Amino acid sequence: MRRQIPAGGIKLIKTVCLDTKTKAFTDNCLAADISELRIIEDNIVWADVADPTSSDFEELAEEFGFHHLSIEDCRNEHQRPKVEEYPGYYFIVLYEAQLVGPNDRLELRELNIFLGKNYLVTVHSQPIRAVETAARLWHEWSDRAEHGSGLLAYILIDAIVDDYLPLLGVISDRMDDLEDSIFGEFQSGAIEEIFAIKKKLLYLRRSVTPLRDVFNTLLRREQPIFARETHVYFQDVFDHLIRVSDTIDNLRDMLSSTMDAYLSVSGNRMNMIMKRLTSISTILMSVTLVAGIYGMNFDLMPELKWQYGYVFALLSMVGIGAGLYLYLKKVNWL
Amino acid sequence: MRRQIPAGGIKLIKTVCLDTKTKAFTDNCLAADISELRIIEDNIVWADVADPTSSDFEELAEEFGFHHLSIEDCRNEHQRPKVEEYPGYYFIVLYEAQLVGPNDRLELRELNIFLGKNYLVTVHSQPIRAVETAARLWHEWSDRAEHGSGLLAYILIDAIVDDYLPLLGVISDRMDDLEDSIFGEFQSGAIEEIFAIKKKLLYLRRSVTPLRDVFNTLLRREQPIFARETHVYFQDVFDHLIRVSDTIDNLRDMLSSTMDAYLSVSGNRMNMIMKRLTSISTILMSVTLVAGIYGMNFDLMPELKWQYGYVFALLSMVGIGAGLYLYLKKVNWL
Amino acid sequence: MRRQIPAGGIKLIKTVCLDTKTKAFTDNCLAADISELRIIEDNIVWADVADPTSSDFEELAEEFGFHHLSIEDCRNEHQRPKVEEYPGYYFIVLYEAQLVGPNDRLELRELNIFLGKNYLVTVHSQPIRAVETAARLWHEWSDRAEHGSGLLAYILIDAIVDDYLPLLGVISDRMDDLEDSIFGEFQSGAIEEIFAIKKKLLYLRRSVTPLRDVFNTLLRREQPIFARETHVYFQDVFDHLIRVSDTIDNLRDMLSSTMDAYLSVSGNRMNMIMKRLTSISTILMSVTLVAGIYGMNFDLMPELKWQYGYVFALLSMVGIGAGLYLYLKKVNWL
Amino acid sequence: MRRQIPAGGIKLIKTVCLDTKTKAFTDNCLAADISELRIIEDNIVWADVADPTSSDFEELAEEFGFHHLSIEDCRNEHQRPKVEEYPGYYFIVLYEAQLVGPNDRLELRELNIFLGKNYLVTVHSQPIRAVETAARLWHEWSDRAEHGSGLLAYILIDAIVDDYLPLLGVISDRMDDLEDSIFGEFQSGAIEEIFAIKKKLLYLRRSVTPLRDVFNTLLRREQPIFARETHVYFQDVFDHLIRVSDTIDNLRDMLSSTMDAYLSVSGNRMNMIMKRLTSISTILMSVTLVAGIYGMNFDLMPELKWQYGYVFALLSMVGIGAGLYLYLKKVNWL
Amino acid sequence: MRRQIPAGGIKLIKTVCLDTKTKAFTDNCLAADISELRIIEDNIVWADVADPTSSDFEELAEEFGFHHLSIEDCRNEHQRPKVEEYPGYYFIVLYEAQLVGPNDRLELRELNIFLGKNYLVTVHSQPIRAVETAARLWHEWSDRAEHGSGLLAYILIDAIVDDYLPLLGVISDRMDDLEDSIFGEFQSGAIEEIFAIKKKLLYLRRSVTPLRDVFNTLLRREQPIFARETHVYFQDVFDHLIRVSDTIDNLRDMLSSTMDAYLSVSGNRMNMIMKRLTSISTILMSVTLVAGIYGMNFDLMPELKWQYGYVFALLSMVGIGAGLYLYLKKVNWL
Repeated sequence: MRRQIPAGGIKLIKTVCLDTKTKAFTDNCLAADISELRIIEDNIVWADVADPTSSDFEELAEEFGFHHLSIEDCRNEHQRPKVEEYPGYYFIVLYEAQLVGPNDRLELRELNIFLGKNYLVTVHSQPIRAVETAARLWHEWSDRAEHGSGLLAYILIDAIVDDYLPLLGVISDRMDDLEDSIFGEFQSGAIEEIFAIKKKLLYLRRSVTPLRDVFNTLLRREQPIFARETHVYFQDVFDHLIRVSDTIDNLRDMLSSTMDAYLSVSGNRMNMIMKRLTSISTILMSVTLVAGIYGMNFDLMPELKWQYGYVFALLSMVGIGAGLYLYLKKVNWL
Repeated sequence: MRRQIPAGGIKLIKTVCLDTKTKAFTDNCLAADISELRIIEDNIVWADVADPTSSDFEELAEEFGFHHLSIEDCRNEHQRPKVEEYPGYYFIVLYEAQLVGPNDRLELRELNIFLGKNYLVTVHSQPIRAVETAARLWHEWSDRAEHGSGLLAYILIDAIVDDYLPLLGVISDRMDDLEDSIFGEFQSGAIEEIFAIKKKLLYLRRSVTPLRDVFNTLLRREQPIFARETHVYFQDVFDHLIRVSDTIDNLRDMLSSTMDAYLSVSGNRMNMIMKRLTSISTILMSVTLVAGIYGMNFDLMPELKWQYGYVFALLSMVGIGAGLYLYLKKVNWL
Repeated sequence: MRRQIPAGGIKLIKTVCLDTKTKAFTDNCLAADISELRIIEDNIVWADVADPTSSDFEELAEEFGFHHLSIEDCRNEHQRPKVEEYPGYYFIVLYEAQLVGPNDRLELRELNIFLGKNYLVTVHSQPIRAVETAARLWHEWSDRAEHGSGLLAYILIDAIVDDYLPLLGVISDRMDDLEDSIFGEFQSGAIEEIFAIKKKLLYLRRSVTPLRDVFNTLLRREQPIFARETHVYFQDVFDHLIRVSDTIDNLRDMLSSTMDAYLSVSGNRMNMIMKRLTSISTILMSVTLVAGIYGMNFDLMPELKWQYGYVFALLSMVGIGAGLYLYLKKVNWL
Repeated sequence: MRRQIPAGGIKLIKTVCLDTKTKAFTDNCLAADISELRIIEDNIVWADVADPTSSDFEELAEEFGFHHLSIEDCRNEHQRPKVEEYPGYYFIVLYEAQLVGPNDRLELRELNIFLGKNYLVTVHSQPIRAVETAARLWHEWSDRAEHGSGLLAYILIDAIVDDYLPLLGVISDRMDDLEDSIFGEFQSGAIEEIFAIKKKLLYLRRSVTPLRDVFNTLLRREQPIFARETHVYFQDVFDHLIRVSDTIDNLRDMLSSTMDAYLSVSGNRMNMIMKRLTSISTILMSVTLVAGIYGMNFDLMPELKWQYGYVFALLSMVGIGAGLYLYLKKVNWL
Repeated sequence: MRRQIPAGGIKLIKTVCLDTKTKAFTDNCLAADISELRIIEDNIVWADVADPTSSDFEELAEEFGFHHLSIEDCRNEHQRPKVEEYPGYYFIVLYEAQLVGPNDRLELRELNIFLGKNYLVTVHSQPIRAVETAARLWHEWSDRAEHGSGLLAYILIDAIVDDYLPLLGVISDRMDDLEDSIFGEFQSGAIEEIFAIKKKLLYLRRSVTPLRDVFNTLLRREQPIFARETHVYFQDVFDHLIRVSDTIDNLRDMLSSTMDAYLSVSGNRMNMIMKRLTSISTILMSVTLVAGIYGMNFDLMPELKWQYGYVFALLSMVGIGAGLYLYLKKVNWL
């Protein structure tokens, strides 16, 4: 899959070039040819760099003239999602989210985007599904090629942002199950899962809200790099970002409701247990009292002499026990 | 009810055209005539499209020149409520709310509105009551026809927004009942209903607050499409949106108070149960102690020889029991 | 009290006219004369309409040229407090608050104000005390007549806003009592009163904070209707609104502290009850154990033969009970 | 201390005049001379009015031309802290805080400041320490006299604001003690003190944050009364106000943590008590069971005939009791 | 290490001078030479003053012309982090954070920076690691010398800000451990550690968020002292500040989740304990009841005469006990 550039070139997975005039794609160009391709103004070059080495970074910086601070951010992973404006290009960091494994572990994969007037450079150390999707869609949308690199960036970012929604759907379903189980059979272990979902939502929010805020700022001011017509696409990404972050906030609200419900139901069960304790104690103590009474050693206790005294005592015990049981059952304490 | 347009036309439920000069309405125009009607500048055309197919969307986009992103949003349901400005028209998404069924299940029905200078296109996949209301009111308000499509949009949106208030009234009444029941007989199941209302309010807030925020932004900046006089109508919608969202926030505040009250009352009942447990244990143990004492086997226990020793023992048991009972009743532990 | 205007006139309680030049008041003018009085520019006309009928609204709208949307808001009660700017006048909705009845029930009475350059129209369906106060003060402040209708509006609104403070004082005093009772005797019913006050504060906040926000906006922008000198009066109203809403927020903060205190103290009492339960159980069970031992049927139990065995047993019971009691008293469990 | 002005003058505690040219102070000027002193432009007059009567207010208003609304605010105590701009002067209300008495009761003393271009009038009904401090410092800072009345206002306000910090230090120390006691011996009465501190912080915040907000606004806009060089002093006051209000917010955060800790530790102790209850019940019930067994009246119970049966029974009781005790001690339930 | 300047000079640890033209560094210049070095415009002078005396401050103020208010802030420790603009220089206060000792005690060390056009003065009373780091990096980055003192300030501030991240990593790891322990073995003492971390995060937030806010303001307005190219470095510091403060906020969110989890698990354990109490009581009471029955003194109790009556009684006790035990084990109450 991975193409090794022979001498001195950057290790690129994919390089695609689109001539916006002829609408012709040149897939798998050589990294060495990037400089040439970029000279022609109508060309849009997309270079996708996976798992880059230190020298890759240096060559990228040289070829495209990236500021050393943005290269530094690219090198150090775990940046916060952001859009930064540098002279001649935007530097964008965002995260693709995926649930993996049997426990639906949340995995966030960092994608660094350098978005220039007629190029897009994507850098990532883990495989990003949206890169494949964007490559496919870009070919399909070639009739809108006049929007240039902005359209490509839109397709790529939108693919990542839209992927959050089904993932949030999975979490939402799991929460509905949890809620049912809390009001149903009540499993005290549910708290652990509530807590795990809370953490997931926290991480998801971290990877979306900063982007939303930055897009908000970007869309409100003058954007000299892109034409007015491309603007509407970024408006759309912003709209999806709001939708995703609103959904996350709603799930968080709902989760805290679930938590409250859990605690209340848990408190109710505690009350129930205490009532039961009171009931059982009362029944057993009352019955024992009868036995205690007939265990007294008074010389003159007529019942002791009766032929059916013992049976009478046992029956009164059963009677008292059953009576109390029925009463406590009726008032819903047992 | 539904009229099938024969050849190639859009499947429309209703098309109404109003000549703002003569104030004459033309109901049930043919979809095929829309283009002709729109040529006359004084005409306001309202096309209501229900449950549209994929080809309907395409014809709509072609006829009115809608941007493919707005058509896309219209096609994918469950958009967040919003007002988006596109060249030549506004794209509005909002939700009609209704409580249905015996359990007052909340149903939110999406309505997409394309609002142009002299047309209004409404798209929805479920029946929207406000569409009927707006059609009726538009005819009645024909004396204000000079406000154009803006007035129609106002009537439609206001009909939807105003419908939230009686619905919130129903919820508010239910909450008052809940509250009474909590301080009254206390049913531990109330928590489930509190939780259900909480969710309803969450969904209602989601479908109102984004609209409120967008209207706020819209009203503060220049609105080139509509005349200054129409502005006051949108101010009115905004006012109603604030009222609805304030009411929702108030109900949420009140619900969380109810929740707190529930928890406190629940805690108090727990205290009460514990007091009762202590009381019953104390009484029964004390009485049993008497039986235990006279069950001892000492050779010299004068009471055992007394003629009324047994009666005395029983009476002292009753005495101790009754005494403790009265005391605990007095200090409010039983 | 109420004066019935004979033919076709608006049913007015009070109409006062002030000539700002001569500073002469004309009380109880006829509603029919309003049009004439308004022609003279120096006149300030105040028309107070109580419990208006549908035709009253129509005549008002015609006489003063009110927009049908503001008349609509006036007709439909339970508007949220607001200040709306219409061409030529402000439409203001606010609420007078009063505690009534033995339970200090909170009553909020709506007052609609139409404030024009040289007139003030007040509409309300319930009696408003501030109307009387304002009428009296307006006569007293005639030396500041040059501030025109703005001054009258100031007097009226300020009378309403200032009335909130003593009312909040009553609530504050009640909260101090509650707090003392929680840390003192502790009544579990206090939660119900905390909840009732919470609701009152919620309603009061609803009727003040929107006004505060609107005044804030009004004062920050150009106010073409009123002169600069009148501005300082509205600044003063705004200051009082902040004071009232700050006080409400403080009371809410304090109430939530009281609530927390209630819950903590309630929890502590639970702990105390549990300690007491443990203590009583321990004492009774220990004493019963002694009785149980001497109730055993061994042939060889020397104590049973002793002359004072029984007394010894009883004394050891008392001794054990008293010892445990003193110990538990010392460690503060009883 | 208090100097009585003979005929018709305002009852002043202190009047100080500074000639900014010669840097000469004239202490204890006569109130009657204020008008004359103010005529000379280089003079800065500071008039400190304590416990003023109604006629004092009138004379103040006449002498300095104060607006009747600011005089009204000055007369009615318990204003919220604020800075209001009136034509020709600022009206400032702020509070000096002090802990008094054995219970560290918080006392807030109101100080009203009228700050004009070349005068400062301070009005208060209770003694204000900062007035003395400011009088002393003003003499010492005479080399910066060119900053005029602004510098004097700075010295005075800064003296008040800086006095909050040691007071907050006292509260912070007390909170550390509380915290130690909660994790240490745990006194259930701590909740009452937490609550008392919470109230103190609430009052302190009320008397600082409004000032901070107003200073923020003042510093951001044009300040025509004072020169640019004086601006830096007010920036400094603002910085101290932020520091004080940040400290208050931090203490509030910490207090709510302490409250949470209290509740958790309280919950843990409850758990401990319940464990102990379970343990003691188990031990006593088990031992009593042995006694119960040998209290049975079967004809054939070999142990009853044994010579050391009784001793055996007692020893088995002790054994069971001790065994359970050691086990429960080991699992940390006792 | 510390160099003592002989006569009258400021006690400096380190003075470095960089000629931005020749890119030559002059390390360890004499304090006495500072004035001379500063005359040459291309020189950047960095003076690091440790543990300064009162006279040091005076000489600093004289040499660089610092405003007495900034010197005052420098003298009084425990300032809040801030960036203040004075004529000709910025005064910056920030804190270096470190975990020290076996208990990971948080230590915050204050660093005061005076940042002028071609000088940087750092003042601190405790050793600051970032000073060493910055000294080293400044030499390495000499190729970017044209950015002047701004670059040096960037290196220094960034070194301090970046040091927060590993520290937060340590706290985050500790929180993961805590969380595992809560859902695992559950130690009731965990609450004390949660509380300690909460306090640490509170202090860290205090030392970061004010800086973030100030940088935000600084970057949005005109910055006359530094060139546009240096701006990007401060943007980078701002980005790191956001990252640090976001991380702190996330940890706080997570900690409060952990706290909730702790409380819920603690509540669950309480429920478990109560269930166990109920179970043990029930078993022991039931078994004791059997003993009580056969301890009754009825003349006619056939079982008492049976040869294996006693064995039968014992077996029935064991049977009842075991049966209940197994049942309660099955329903998970034991």
